[in-house]
Amino acid sequence: MKSIKTIRDPIHGTIAVNELELELIDTPQFQRLRRIKQNGLCFLIYPAMNSTRFEHSLGVMHLAGLLADHLELEDDDRQIIRVAGLLHDIGHCAFSHTSDDVLTKMGHSHEENSTRIISETEISDILGKYGLNDREISELINGRGKFGKIISSEIDIDKMDYLIRDSYYAGVAYGVIDLERIIYGMKLVNNELVIKRGSLEAVESLLISRNLMYQTVYRHHTKRIVEAMFKRALDKFLDDEDMSYEDFIQMDDIDLVSRLRNAKGYPRDMMKRIDRRELFKIAFQEGISLIEEGLREEMLKNSREIEEGIADDLGVDRGYILIDIPEIKMSEFRILIESDDGLKLINEVSSLARALEKAEEEKLVFCIYTPPEYMKNLKGFDVEKYMEFTQTKLGRFL
Amino acid sequence: MKSIKTIRDPIHGTIAVNELELELIDTPQFQRLRRIKQNGLCFLIYPAMNSTRFEHSLGVMHLAGLLADHLELEDDDRQIIRVAGLLHDIGHCAFSHTSDDVLTKMGHSHEENSTRIISETEISDILGKYGLNDREISELINGRGKFGKIISSEIDIDKMDYLIRDSYYAGVAYGVIDLERIIYGMKLVNNELVIKRGSLEAVESLLISRNLMYQTVYRHHTKRIVEAMFKRALDKFLDDEDMSYEDFIQMDDIDLVSRLRNAKGYPRDMMKRIDRRELFKIAFQEGISLIEEGLREEMLKNSREIEEGIADDLGVDRGYILIDIPEIKMSEFRILIESDDGLKLINEVSSLARALEKAEEEKLVFCIYTPPEYMKNLKGFDVEKYMEFTQTKLGRFL
Amino acid sequence: MKSIKTIRDPIHGTIAVNELELELIDTPQFQRLRRIKQNGLCFLIYPAMNSTRFEHSLGVMHLAGLLADHLELEDDDRQIIRVAGLLHDIGHCAFSHTSDDVLTKMGHSHEENSTRIISETEISDILGKYGLNDREISELINGRGKFGKIISSEIDIDKMDYLIRDSYYAGVAYGVIDLERIIYGMKLVNNELVIKRGSLEAVESLLISRNLMYQTVYRHHTKRIVEAMFKRALDKFLDDEDMSYEDFIQMDDIDLVSRLRNAKGYPRDMMKRIDRRELFKIAFQEGISLIEEGLREEMLKNSREIEEGIADDLGVDRGYILIDIPEIKMSEFRILIESDDGLKLINEVSSLARALEKAEEEKLVFCIYTPPEYMKNLKGFDVEKYMEFTQTKLGRFL
Amino acid sequence: MKSIKTIRDPIHGTIAVNELELELIDTPQFQRLRRIKQNGLCFLIYPAMNSTRFEHSLGVMHLAGLLADHLELEDDDRQIIRVAGLLHDIGHCAFSHTSDDVLTKMGHSHEENSTRIISETEISDILGKYGLNDREISELINGRGKFGKIISSEIDIDKMDYLIRDSYYAGVAYGVIDLERIIYGMKLVNNELVIKRGSLEAVESLLISRNLMYQTVYRHHTKRIVEAMFKRALDKFLDDEDMSYEDFIQMDDIDLVSRLRNAKGYPRDMMKRIDRRELFKIAFQEGISLIEEGLREEMLKNSREIEEGIADDLGVDRGYILIDIPEIKMSEFRILIESDDGLKLINEVSSLARALEKAEEEKLVFCIYTPPEYMKNLKGFDVEKYMEFTQTKLGRFL
Repeated sequence: MKSIKTIRDPIHGTIAVNELELELIDTPQFQRLRRIKQNGLCFLIYPAMNSTRFEHSLGVMHLAGLLADHLELEDDDRQIIRVAGLLHDIGHCAFSHTSDDVLTKMGHSHEENSTRIISETEISDILGKYGLNDREISELINGRGKFGKIISSEIDIDKMDYLIRDSYYAGVAYGVIDLERIIYGMKLVNNELVIKRGSLEAVESLLISRNLMYQTVYRHHTKRIVEAMFKRALDKFLDDEDMSYEDFIQMDDIDLVSRLRNAKGYPRDMMKRIDRRELFKIAFQEGISLIEEGLREEMLKNSREIEEGIADDLGVDRGYILIDIPEIKMSEFRILIESDDGLKLINEVSSLARALEKAEEEKLVFCIYTPPEYMKNLKGFDVEKYMEFTQTKLGRFL
Repeated sequence: MKSIKTIRDPIHGTIAVNELELELIDTPQFQRLRRIKQNGLCFLIYPAMNSTRFEHSLGVMHLAGLLADHLELEDDDRQIIRVAGLLHDIGHCAFSHTSDDVLTKMGHSHEENSTRIISETEISDILGKYGLNDREISELINGRGKFGKIISSEIDIDKMDYLIRDSYYAGVAYGVIDLERIIYGMKLVNNELVIKRGSLEAVESLLISRNLMYQTVYRHHTKRIVEAMFKRALDKFLDDEDMSYEDFIQMDDIDLVSRLRNAKGYPRDMMKRIDRRELFKIAFQEGISLIEEGLREEMLKNSREIEEGIADDLGVDRGYILIDIPEIKMSEFRILIESDDGLKLINEVSSLARALEKAEEEKLVFCIYTPPEYMKNLKGFDVEKYMEFTQTKLGRFL
Repeated sequence: MKSIKTIRDPIHGTIAVNELELELIDTPQFQRLRRIKQNGLCFLIYPAMNSTRFEHSLGVMHLAGLLADHLELEDDDRQIIRVAGLLHDIGHCAFSHTSDDVLTKMGHSHEENSTRIISETEISDILGKYGLNDREISELINGRGKFGKIISSEIDIDKMDYLIRDSYYAGVAYGVIDLERIIYGMKLVNNELVIKRGSLEAVESLLISRNLMYQTVYRHHTKRIVEAMFKRALDKFLDDEDMSYEDFIQMDDIDLVSRLRNAKGYPRDMMKRIDRRELFKIAFQEGISLIEEGLREEMLKNSREIEEGIADDLGVDRGYILIDIPEIKMSEFRILIESDDGLKLINEVSSLARALEKAEEEKLVFCIYTPPEYMKNLKGFDVEKYMEFTQTKLGRFL
Repeated sequence: MKSIKTIRDPIHGTIAVNELELELIDTPQFQRLRRIKQNGLCFLIYPAMNSTRFEHSLGVMHLAGLLADHLELEDDDRQIIRVAGLLHDIGHCAFSHTSDDVLTKMGHSHEENSTRIISETEISDILGKYGLNDREISELINGRGKFGKIISSEIDIDKMDYLIRDSYYAGVAYGVIDLERIIYGMKLVNNELVIKRGSLEAVESLLISRNLMYQTVYRHHTKRIVEAMFKRALDKFLDDEDMSYEDFIQMDDIDLVSRLRNAKGYPRDMMKRIDRRELFKIAFQEGISLIEEGLREEMLKNSREIEEGIADDLGVDRGYILIDIPEIKMSEFRILIESDDGLKLINEVSSLARALEKAEEEKLVFCIYTPPEYMKNLKGFDVEKYMEFTQTKLGRFL
């Protein structure tokens, strides 16, 4: 299908779209992505991080086309991959990943929401009109099927776009990756995306870039604080309001902020603090690896109770002590490298990849946050004592 | 004063702030700028144009520092200019320039609002605490006083920042200017910002950049349509709601969109169309220079009545015919160039500057917009006839 | 033909080449371009301007491919245009344009040399082997034939590449152009390259970029001095050595510098001064427009005699007074714009284009250069007196 | 001292120089660096890598100034560091590192040459005139003294400049580092350059960048081939010509190429092949770690004899079999990180740093090169057999 329009993008220059793609873009479902920030409240740390799921989705579609060209796929396959790239984030709710936990609690997920939108709204009509199968698109988005690894895997085009895009807006150099060299290094072998040996460095640099972006942007300590505040506010708000899943998934960032501003009590106070950037501070921190694994899991499950217990003990209002226990995602890099002796996993041929797997765990930190006005409640506690104290508290709740 | 924090910016890299500046940034008044888009609804045309007055203000402060260093100003003067740069947009209301007309109707302006915020809120307390005079800052922001031209003139640092910044996000090359060369070419002569002869080219390139950005971004025809829709919605909303100036200036973009979404009738419909990017189309256009100047002014004054008259005649609901008459700002470039024979105006030494003054007028277009569903009402009218018809209509209302 | 290799380029990223192109690149004739600087001695002013005709030629080939794709040309036409782009500078001699005058004196030109190389060396064998006609390629390079305007005209891909490339290395922002938008705006109408109305701004920005690059880089006053010194050295060297055209065109930059270093007398001294950057200074300058046109032409023809006359009178060794009379190239912009009333020349629709034509003349300056040690010979002469003196001198030789 | 001139640089924008610095730049010794390529023959692989030691030296001086500003050094110290940055490569000979082995054979080094130039030429006069001590500068350049680590250490400003600069010209993204964040993270503690804990990521990214640049650029296999060819040609040329150290260090790249072109026999043939890019190919390769360490050292010492032995056996002319045994530089990263428990080495706190130390060894490869025309001599040998054969051959010479 011929391009009928071009859209300007700071990352990829000109993104050309054809009739089918333009119809999809013009649906209210897709336009909604203009009002869902790619990185939620990250802009409170990196002021220029205001980009949206809309531009990112266009970017992924564009990369899908480049990769399809490189792999010399048939026109039909190329089209299907581009559409999957375009729609891969269609089910994201207000504040993207920040609201994923809410969806989980409601017994749903944004992936499920994507499938629903693709199969039940006017998007499925458009796909049908042009002879595309909505189920096939959904499968692709979930990383399954012949080309699934292109859309969703350790080195998918989703990551390629957001690493570059986010680093561009954050104004840090870490996300710069050699897009062309990675794409030129890719091959399809039995539905698996495989990297040619000569492109190992390019892929290593992607892994490194991801690692550095996690450390400096995605897991920036202030960002973790804001997110903890926002999540707790949202939790409380949904408890208070008894909002249905159906209503929740309709909202965009504007709706949600507006609702929280007009809420009462705790959610309203949190939203006001976030709007004014009057944030909680770190009252305590400890390397996550020092906390025993079993304990960690228990803490994750009971985090709200633990928080309230600590708050009560310290004479702090409930909700004004927040604990933050980062999950250790064991990121085994499932990337296949083509070598003289057949396909190998990247950590068999690259000590850098092995190191990166380990390095992620090393820097995770368990934290307790509280507003500045309550920091004084903690005076008199030296760090050592406070830690013991905390341990005891935690103990009580397990 | 020593820097105590750095903020990351995609345009200028690292922006260092001192204690005074950080206190100003941390006020709710300044934090509010995070939620006022630099270019209103421009993101509907250039999807990545989501930047805010917040980051722009930091950028202008940063440039103020660079320029002060170059001019070898005293520390106190440097500080005052940086603060003026930081606060120059503090009075902007939701959707920035789009709401300026609303302010005018209410008998106010964003400049006035800036002065108020600087002299009446906690910002004036902070300024006082550090020995800065709020009136002096306000004067600077309005382009007056010893260093006024730095903040507000034909080649001020405001323009330097937004041209680069906007072109960065739009993803067009037009805004790229040689910042350093312009700054290196500046001199203060009797409170006037003067350009050294050797930097004429750098300044010409700024004028050109401005010209190209106007043509391709700021006056993009779709942007004009969206703006016309939004302004009419806002007008109607304020008529309906009878909102006070005091309430209006408290709002940010989120508040305003949220209010319009929850409004009734016309404003709600317009907001829905904008959210879904279901925009009006150009039903008619004509080079502005072909319309007699006197007529043009009358049209500007009576635009709402004219619109309604046309709508009635064409059987279109009122509000669904919008006319757009761009103002001709005679942009005489008041830029002084230092030459062997003393100071000269730039258009005395540069035919390029002269050409740019003229070129702006050349491309202005008068337009009538209507939704696609009403375009059929205009069928049967060939362009010539329709123009005559329009002229007659207009005549009736003058 | 399939790509079989990629070459890394800072401007265009990855340049893919096929078998035919790789064979052409691997000829000694083409490899020689690695050792011919794109901008001769410009690196003495902009230290990073060390790029070569080799990388530029690859860049032009790459742009040819992009344009062919956009114009949806047949594979054969695409290939022929890419080859013409690749070979368009193949005939350049050592120090490119600086030695063009030498070629003229010898009764030849670099265009002729290109044609010769394309039709007589192993390059013609390779073209033949792949079924390409060497004459067709030569025609294209000279701007003739169906696609000639693509390679050589006011808005050709040659210019697009060198403006971006040179500004990248110079480190100035002026050469930044919106490549994609220009290419997207192009159309072929009866063998003419025509610009769609909507891309007028993109083309204007190209003209502006060219204008600014001329002013700040290509005609930088120090560059003019170095070039005048080098040209006079080369003239004298060729007089002394009686080198043949055949020998001259074999040389690259290294050969020529090496020969001049090992020469005697004046050429050796000039080369030593250039190597040490001990340059002549401007002893006199005057806007070119103030000099009567007829006089100017006479001066151009008799420049060497005039120089020697002045030198004798001032007690300066011959060769140590150099005069520099820039030619006024009337750059009528022959660019066709598609409009509602058919094709129009750009200066009919763009006052900016008209202004640029005029602006070029405005800044041309006639100069006299001499080494610092002879500047004292001119002491006692105030500028006015010196000008009269010069005029009289000039008079005597006409 | 005030800036009196600015020089344009693509990497750092505008580099300002004062009177002292300008005088140093204007010496023939420093101007010579304009004609010594930063990366020797690397341009045969990355066509745009034509940058020189001249621009790099300016860049290092510029970074020295930025770092001195950040560390809030006294004016005198700032000046001395800038001069050391400017002059740190002054002793480099033609083709930089490629000719370092030649200097070693002659019993000298480029460091020694730097010291000589700084203390014995007009450069020492200029330093004296402005009250700077040439010995102090030389000490700094060799990494000694109070600020030595700034100029020469694992994270010196030399590396910061060349990584960014080389990646810019190579057109790869790997060299992009966050200059400002690294500089902001530095501290001087007892003459040691120490990194604040919060900047660990920025320094890790520098190490990674270095690692990737080594793999893809500095140790690119074709670059190693060209270098092996050039070194052998140079060896033979110097044997034939009996050139003195004094003569050798005067030459720039142009002189050396010119001499090789005009030489006889082997050096001339090699130079011709390099000029035409008719390069040797890899006839054999093996991971260096598989070769026993003792054996490796022996091979390095006897490489010429081994080459000739293999050549004789295979019926190849001597000089047309080249072996390449990369040295394993154990790059223990001597970088100090400030932590709560005092200073620590980076590999105590960063598993990434540890991994990078190991990763370098992993990819080193031992190779045998020969021209394409001799590849046929190796037919019939399957890789396994050939390896045994080689091992035996090698054995014979040890």
